[in-house]
Amino acid sequence: MKASQMFAPTLREVPAEAEIVSHQLLMRSGMLRKTASGVYTYMPLAWRTMKKIMDIIREEMDAAGCQELMLPIVHPAELWQQSGRWQVYGDELWRLKDRHGRDFCLGPTHEEVITDLVSGDVKSYKQLPLRLYQIQNKYRDERRPRFGLMRGREFIMKDMYSFDRDEEGLDESYRLMHQAYTNIFTRCGLDFRPVAADSGAIGGDTSQEFMVLAESGEAGIIYCSSCTYAASTEIAAAYLDKTPSQEIPEDLEEVYTPDCKTMEALTAFLGVPLEKTLKTLCYMADEKFVMVLLRGDRMVNEIKVKNRIGCLELNMAGDEEIRQHLGSPAGYLGPVGVKNIRIIVDQEVPYLANLVGGANKDQYHLRNVNPGRDFPIDDVADVRLVEAGELCPQCQQELAFARGIEAGQIFKLGTKYSESMGAKYLDDNGKEQLMVMGCYGIGVGRTMAAAIEQNHDQDGIVWPLAIAPYHVVVVPVSDKDPDQMAAAEKLYQELTRARVEAVLDDRKERPGVKFKDADLIGYPFRVTIGPKALAEGKGEVKLRSVGKVEMVALDEIVPLILEKMKKHM
Amino acid sequence: MKASQMFAPTLREVPAEAEIVSHQLLMRSGMLRKTASGVYTYMPLAWRTMKKIMDIIREEMDAAGCQELMLPIVHPAELWQQSGRWQVYGDELWRLKDRHGRDFCLGPTHEEVITDLVSGDVKSYKQLPLRLYQIQNKYRDERRPRFGLMRGREFIMKDMYSFDRDEEGLDESYRLMHQAYTNIFTRCGLDFRPVAADSGAIGGDTSQEFMVLAESGEAGIIYCSSCTYAASTEIAAAYLDKTPSQEIPEDLEEVYTPDCKTMEALTAFLGVPLEKTLKTLCYMADEKFVMVLLRGDRMVNEIKVKNRIGCLELNMAGDEEIRQHLGSPAGYLGPVGVKNIRIIVDQEVPYLANLVGGANKDQYHLRNVNPGRDFPIDDVADVRLVEAGELCPQCQQELAFARGIEAGQIFKLGTKYSESMGAKYLDDNGKEQLMVMGCYGIGVGRTMAAAIEQNHDQDGIVWPLAIAPYHVVVVPVSDKDPDQMAAAEKLYQELTRARVEAVLDDRKERPGVKFKDADLIGYPFRVTIGPKALAEGKGEVKLRSVGKVEMVALDEIVPLILEKMKKHM
Repeated sequence: MKASQMFAPTLREVPAEAEIVSHQLLMRSGMLRKTASGVYTYMPLAWRTMKKIMDIIREEMDAAGCQELMLPIVHPAELWQQSGRWQVYGDELWRLKDRHGRDFCLGPTHEEVITDLVSGDVKSYKQLPLRLYQIQNKYRDERRPRFGLMRGREFIMKDMYSFDRDEEGLDESYRLMHQAYTNIFTRCGLDFRPVAADSGAIGGDTSQEFMVLAESGEAGIIYCSSCTYAASTEIAAAYLDKTPSQEIPEDLEEVYTPDCKTMEALTAFLGVPLEKTLKTLCYMADEKFVMVLLRGDRMVNEIKVKNRIGCLELNMAGDEEIRQHLGSPAGYLGPVGVKNIRIIVDQEVPYLANLVGGANKDQYHLRNVNPGRDFPIDDVADVRLVEAGELCPQCQQELAFARGIEAGQIFKLGTKYSESMGAKYLDDNGKEQLMVMGCYGIGVGRTMAAAIEQNHDQDGIVWPLAIAPYHVVVVPVSDKDPDQMAAAEKLYQELTRARVEAVLDDRKERPGVKFKDADLIGYPFRVTIGPKALAEGKGEVKLRSVGKVEMVALDEIVPLILEKMKKHM
Repeated sequence: MKASQMFAPTLREVPAEAEIVSHQLLMRSGMLRKTASGVYTYMPLAWRTMKKIMDIIREEMDAAGCQELMLPIVHPAELWQQSGRWQVYGDELWRLKDRHGRDFCLGPTHEEVITDLVSGDVKSYKQLPLRLYQIQNKYRDERRPRFGLMRGREFIMKDMYSFDRDEEGLDESYRLMHQAYTNIFTRCGLDFRPVAADSGAIGGDTSQEFMVLAESGEAGIIYCSSCTYAASTEIAAAYLDKTPSQEIPEDLEEVYTPDCKTMEALTAFLGVPLEKTLKTLCYMADEKFVMVLLRGDRMVNEIKVKNRIGCLELNMAGDEEIRQHLGSPAGYLGPVGVKNIRIIVDQEVPYLANLVGGANKDQYHLRNVNPGRDFPIDDVADVRLVEAGELCPQCQQELAFARGIEAGQIFKLGTKYSESMGAKYLDDNGKEQLMVMGCYGIGVGRTMAAAIEQNHDQDGIVWPLAIAPYHVVVVPVSDKDPDQMAAAEKLYQELTRARVEAVLDDRKERPGVKFKDADLIGYPFRVTIGPKALAEGKGEVKLRSVGKVEMVALDEIVPLILEKMKKHM
């Protein structure tokens, strides 16, 4: 491709609305344009990258025995009414009517459509398992679309649905997809981690997110550098040290603790360390008042609390609600003497002794609070946030923390949709059974954006080779020098013949402009043809990822690039 | 692919709603399923064919210097309001609102979106020409979707838009696309014809349709077997024999012609041939009464009449309107003595003499009506339908007629959209100019359906090799015979290694079922491994398109298929 003909209008300014680096760089490099809020045009360079990601996905899906098909984008409401989601999905479901007034929606996901399809055409166990996928536009009418491709209203996803005879079949489908996703993100050249994820209302350890690591990521990850353990901070399990306290429980003692509403003030006033105190949190869980107890230095994980209770809504209790249930202001709360209130005890609390806790009385705390003796420990669970530096629950080595961007998620659905959509088959005994389903998604645009969040510098994008829109840009320093232009053109032709995807920057622009655009667009290799090197029969090869410049004889450039590409792809 | 794992549920029954062969066979072969009226799921086999067509399109577009991008499916109303089409497009434009009540539509075509995009990013003549395409879902909220993929509400199209500096640039873009389309349909293995098409309100000979020839086609084509002339019957030009009549004009004579309201009754009664009569048709063209004159044996082409007048609506005048303007009942109409009425004269009428025409008087006609003498011939145009057997307007050889399915159309748009959307650039003199545009579409699903309409027999589809979902099916006659299964499996592996796309029909089904499915799905090659041939170390190779069966030594089958494929691809 010649740059003079390429539709890649770069910008020098950062568009005001672009808040994150990937959005800024996609706009500046001429790869993305906004058509409406949350609705984008993928320009030719971005579309090349998208196609490369999609090709990698297709290859790995096909290799895992999946079959590609294409479901509609416009879904009839009837299917969503059958699953019950038409009513509960809310405003994010983008609804529309046809000319006859019939209801439709733009599909945000395809469980309904594909389960209906499969239930119509699959009748026998001989036809299972089925693993069906598509790559297609999806829709979510976000209230506030932002972050470019990270949270748009129209976005491109690969979605796969597995239909198995039983749980063992589902386990195998899930395992295959875990491996396929690992292959996909590896081949895309991304540093990523599959992490255990919250599976929400469905429950169980049956969902994993594939996180592309990036400092700008919205999601927190806790992982072990010694073993494979990794989980979203939302669900990361705490290691439990089951060594009981060696202390002898002492007698409860009420102490006057004026102005000690915070843990810091309390520990300073009493001269006890934070871990010798009891943290008491009060919540309203779907209208029910609940108390949660943690070691004083721990942070609560509200998702774990929510999953423990199984409630839809969980909110911190207000002053009024606390006073009504405990008769005390916040800051002096504790479990001792509490009646008819659910007390959820974090799993490490029973192993502690002689703690300082609130007395449920303004300005007073209790010393020597002992679990079991002074409050019930019959509702024990892991309800705290895990932090870097703690021990791995799997191997007891140190845990680390990272930020990431969720680019994919795999999920065991079970029979939720086969039940509501009637997806049944006859087993080898002629007995009717529900199909057991899984679903598996990858955000294609999100993967591209995440690749940029992970791979960029102050000058622009640093594409991993496998998903770069082109591999090489050849830049003659002066378009007015016929020798430079001829050498550049020759090299460009040679690269193209060697199946290296090359761009010749033949534009009538100053070298500075061409270099800036090369860095911004992020070609993995830049070959500069300048007067000095050319006089010696050489060109300057720059590897974008390391910035290093090498002077290389012109006829050695193609072999060198081919060799470096082999190493990186 | 093993048939036991393939999601291709064939049907024995013809679905009631499928009116045409392609729709029936797509449903029966398990390639297509309906999700809603006019909204379909492409099943895995169909999607393989669709991808092959799309790949061919991409290669030819890229080779012609086009760049692929991806525009949104959801369009903001503002852009359509700017072009004026939001108001005039009617009910076929599928409109929707977002959660904030803002108006959008699902794009039926992308002139607005892409012109807006290009106008924002292209400022200089140096950035032109641009040829941008995409392959994507399109929407048309048809009142009555039918014929499967031929007229759906959601369908997949390739659309390309060219932006040039001037008309010469557009000519070149148009020429390139004409060649690319010719390459595409040739590579798809289709018998097709590019034909001159009606360009509607834009006028001029600036649009061509690519018609896939098929008896079931909705469109009529007039073509010359001697030269390249081909046109839609809608606009096929009539050859004009300019030899003036040798007859001496005789005097007008009124004759009593009782019950001669039809041409047939009249010619029988008077004993004159049809071509010696004058056919008089009356129309209401946007509220205006218009008379059209043709030689008695000719058929009118209302599209030519409409284009001649430049009206939006053209309808045959009713009895009341005729009586009001001519004072006579239909059946006795003619141009003689008519005042203040536009009379459009078909171009061959001035060369005729002594015709029989209506007298505008119940039960009376006139003999010896002579053009020019008895009615004005100042509004002369080609307004008749051309039929097979007439002479080619280009080379005067005989014309033929065929039926076809419109699979693609190329179009010179000029400045219609660059004007309304403000797509301007600065030329090399720094002067602002409008970009000159073209648009070029291919219906991908329509091409697949047209391929079936053209290539099928009573047993099923007969895929052209290049777009067949798979090339070969290997059918062991009995799945219970381990020798047959082993030989079939071995052949399947060899074919796959040789990059032949093969299916192994390993299902536990009777041979009749497997053969029927093979014919229905339309694999170009079927290799049967049966007991008798296998005993001699042979397999039976059947070419679907010719039905011929050959007994071939097992180790010669792969080379034979490779050789035949080379010939057909």
